[in-house]
Amino acid sequence: MPRIVETIVTTTDAKGMPHIAPLGLIEDGDGWIVAPFKPSRTLDNLKVNPCAVASHTGDVRVFAGCVTGRRDWPTVPADVVKGVRLADAVSHWELAVERVADDMQRPRFRCRIVHAASHAVWSGYNRAEAAVLELAVLTTRLSMLPPEKIDAEIGYLEIAISKTAGPREREAWGWLMDRVAAYRGGDAGAALKT
Amino acid sequence: MPRIVETIVTTTDAKGMPHIAPLGLIEDGDGWIVAPFKPSRTLDNLKVNPCAVASHTGDVRVFAGCVTGRRDWPTVPADVVKGVRLADAVSHWELAVERVADDMQRPRFRCRIVHAASHAVWSGYNRAEAAVLELAVLTTRLSMLPPEKIDAEIGYLEIAISKTAGPREREAWGWLMDRVAAYRGGDAGAALKT
Repeated sequence: MPRIVETIVTTTDAKGMPHIAPLGLIEDGDGWIVAPFKPSRTLDNLKVNPCAVASHTGDVRVFAGCVTGRRDWPTVPADVVKGVRLADAVSHWELAVERVADDMQRPRFRCRIVHAASHAVWSGYNRAEAAVLELAVLTTRLSMLPPEKIDAEIGYLEIAISKTAGPREREAWGWLMDRVAAYRGGDAGAALKT
Repeated sequence: MPRIVETIVTTTDAKGMPHIAPLGLIEDGDGWIVAPFKPSRTLDNLKVNPCAVASHTGDVRVFAGCVTGRRDWPTVPADVVKGVRLADAVSHWELAVERVADDMQRPRFRCRIVHAASHAVWSGYNRAEAAVLELAVLTTRLSMLPPEKIDAEIGYLEIAISKTAGPREREAWGWLMDRVAAYRGGDAGAALKT
């Protein structure tokens, strides 16, 4: 399996309206593959404007926010491609689509990095950030997992939250746990991939 | 609990010989606390040369290497303090000790960042990197955990490795799993904190 990095991908529609989505980019030699689900706005946008921006942010509230209906994160124009990046990104890549391979579920847009830049000094690993990302992934799979597995994974991830989280990670964790609680309370929509 | 970041801390002895150790830095307002165990070379070094460098690297082999006896990672001189940083760091902080609070187990060196710099564009989150860090933590606690808990945690972490790891993360994972295997095979020293 190829390496995958978890990023915040912004794409824009024909009118230049941006859409933010957390997506795993798949390494492919010196390029990266964006594989949006069918249907999705990221897919629609890539068809009309074949470029994307991957923002690397240390603020995991953006990931947790995007899967809990909070997509209004400040952006600034990209440097080279037609699009935007997250305003508070540690760094970002600007990607141009080179070729497309269609697929029933997830078409693959093979991209090359046409521009990359740093905006802040990366402050290194924080175990709570990683735990938030794992819970964000878990919340998109609630309906596919037995309740005891969900409980066990959350119990494990909570250790890193209790030992290493700061205010941002605790807030992001709270949003995701509200989503888990809503699902358990019978809100089936809470388990949908957003 | 305060926020903690996992970094590679370099300190130097009276002769300028550097020592590399993975350490969690504890956030303390606008400063960071380095809390080395008693006894440790990091502790000895901080007493004779009260500064440290925290290298933020995306290469988790450095973390896995340091807990499995592989400490020979290339360094370059720091910019401001007397010391070195990892040569391939994404970024680094140079820390000056402001005050010390002694402790039976882990004296606390309160530091301020006197210099910070970026050296590469951070490529964002990779779930396998986080899994390697978690396994590195786990390998220092093998003798404190029941075997079934070790198995369960490794089983969980392996999912991210199988789905998102690249060559560097797979190599780091392998070093750590060798350590787990050695411990299970009866090598008690394999569980010691190195």
